[in-house]
Amino acid sequence: MVGSVAFDTLKTPYGERKKILGGAATYFSLSASYFTDVRVVAVVGEDFTPENEAVMTKRGVDTRGIQHAKGKSFHWTGEYGENVNEAKTLNTELNVFETFQPSIPAEYNNSDYLFLANIDPVLQARVRDAMKDVKLVGGDTMNYWITGHRPQLAQMLKRVDVLLINDTETKMLAADNSLPRAARAVMDMGPRALVTKHGEYGATIFFRDGQFGTGHHPFRAPAMPIDEVRDPTGAGDSFAGGFMGYIASQGEINRRVLKHAMFYGSVMGSFAVERFGTERLQSLSREEIDERFNTFRELTHLD
Amino acid sequence: MVGSVAFDTLKTPYGERKKILGGAATYFSLSASYFTDVRVVAVVGEDFTPENEAVMTKRGVDTRGIQHAKGKSFHWTGEYGENVNEAKTLNTELNVFETFQPSIPAEYNNSDYLFLANIDPVLQARVRDAMKDVKLVGGDTMNYWITGHRPQLAQMLKRVDVLLINDTETKMLAADNSLPRAARAVMDMGPRALVTKHGEYGATIFFRDGQFGTGHHPFRAPAMPIDEVRDPTGAGDSFAGGFMGYIASQGEINRRVLKHAMFYGSVMGSFAVERFGTERLQSLSREEIDERFNTFRELTHLD
Repeated sequence: MVGSVAFDTLKTPYGERKKILGGAATYFSLSASYFTDVRVVAVVGEDFTPENEAVMTKRGVDTRGIQHAKGKSFHWTGEYGENVNEAKTLNTELNVFETFQPSIPAEYNNSDYLFLANIDPVLQARVRDAMKDVKLVGGDTMNYWITGHRPQLAQMLKRVDVLLINDTETKMLAADNSLPRAARAVMDMGPRALVTKHGEYGATIFFRDGQFGTGHHPFRAPAMPIDEVRDPTGAGDSFAGGFMGYIASQGEINRRVLKHAMFYGSVMGSFAVERFGTERLQSLSREEIDERFNTFRELTHLD
Repeated sequence: MVGSVAFDTLKTPYGERKKILGGAATYFSLSASYFTDVRVVAVVGEDFTPENEAVMTKRGVDTRGIQHAKGKSFHWTGEYGENVNEAKTLNTELNVFETFQPSIPAEYNNSDYLFLANIDPVLQARVRDAMKDVKLVGGDTMNYWITGHRPQLAQMLKRVDVLLINDTETKMLAADNSLPRAARAVMDMGPRALVTKHGEYGATIFFRDGQFGTGHHPFRAPAMPIDEVRDPTGAGDSFAGGFMGYIASQGEINRRVLKHAMFYGSVMGSFAVERFGTERLQSLSREEIDERFNTFRELTHLD
């Protein structure tokens, strides 16, 4: 996976934290590490400590692709109000991330699965093209690229098998307020499947006709009704980690696998928000994950 | 069921209609009529025509409890923007509904199930007390009663087995922004189960501990990803009709029945919004309903 490693300074109704380890790459890697081997490509600054790196390596994450640059790491400052689905960004210091040029270690070349977290679509496309032999490419993007970098995003979308974005981004990308219609329009731009994330209401995967098997219906995974969403940061990246990690752990890619991946993605997202930062994702067990998977099944299955 | 029969003048992104038949009683009855016999208690004015009544009687609905009063029927005027979950009320003419005193025909006394649609909680409580032998009482309310009529609402809540309201109302009623915590607080006010409706994201039923069987988990039914929500009016009442109607069609009331009722409620809500007013609910078949039920199953079930 390629993405950002960052420090987050944030405030939620449950408290505040200063410069805690975050970033899409961190959340994604920790989450996916419960299912498969993970290799990260990212950039950090001189403020990134061996203790920070150990958070990932303890979970077996391969960090050889993390470049150490002069200067400071990406630093995001934001807060969440009562509506935990919406972050308010107070400050974004890109720092070393501003000039990030992903460099893929030779040891990563035989990777079968690739996830392009939310970075410049030009870089996403370049990484994808460098990884010729991957079986499946997942990708993320955000409103910034949708509104201001359309041509570059179009090139990236042609290179992604499964795009994972939220409802608002889906509607914005398609310029259509009907979610299922917007989903079809987005898939016409390239992705063979689209995962739209609904925050506390779960997520839906739409399939392009004839892709990943037959059938016309989308599939919806619930989110957990959680008493206290302490810190929503990284929920989407944790979802992506569970989703991609589970797929990578299976021998084949079909609708059945993708449906289960939706559940595992939702499960990992639900764990991530229970504590601040990556705390909860550092100390899970596969048993806890499967127990919650079964809870999700009970939550949605009639029999 | 007791509730309002109304005329609706409304505008949605798909068109506008003037004084079309609506009201909770109308949507609920038509929806429930596909599952069980329905008896209505309501009030209408002199502008309510035999053709209006025939919409209900054609579906076998017992309308002997509809009082005909001097004056005009309840008339709601409103519009929906791009966010179909939120209606903007432009005008409410209560007319004959303002002095509505529900009167229950003797022939209704042996009813086993009762639904109290959104009317004055004092009237809801009175109707519930008059129907001594019912097995299950469902009820609805709205922000107007929650903010301004708390003591009366408290009395009504003690008399309801299953309350069906939306997310915002649940959080408002409990004065708590955490949905599962708010749900528990609402059930502490009386209801043995709470159905919170999430609009386009479906609905969740929470159970009070030890009620309707064992288990700690809520249950979530999806909504249909629909290309065009032409008119969201009545979706909640159609949900309630499918929910209560299905329960009434079963011999017993347990979690399995309530879970299936959630699906049928969601199915009926999804049909209601496909066309303006009650049009779609007038012409359904049980086969279409069960076909969509199966679609909902495919939408959510892993296997």
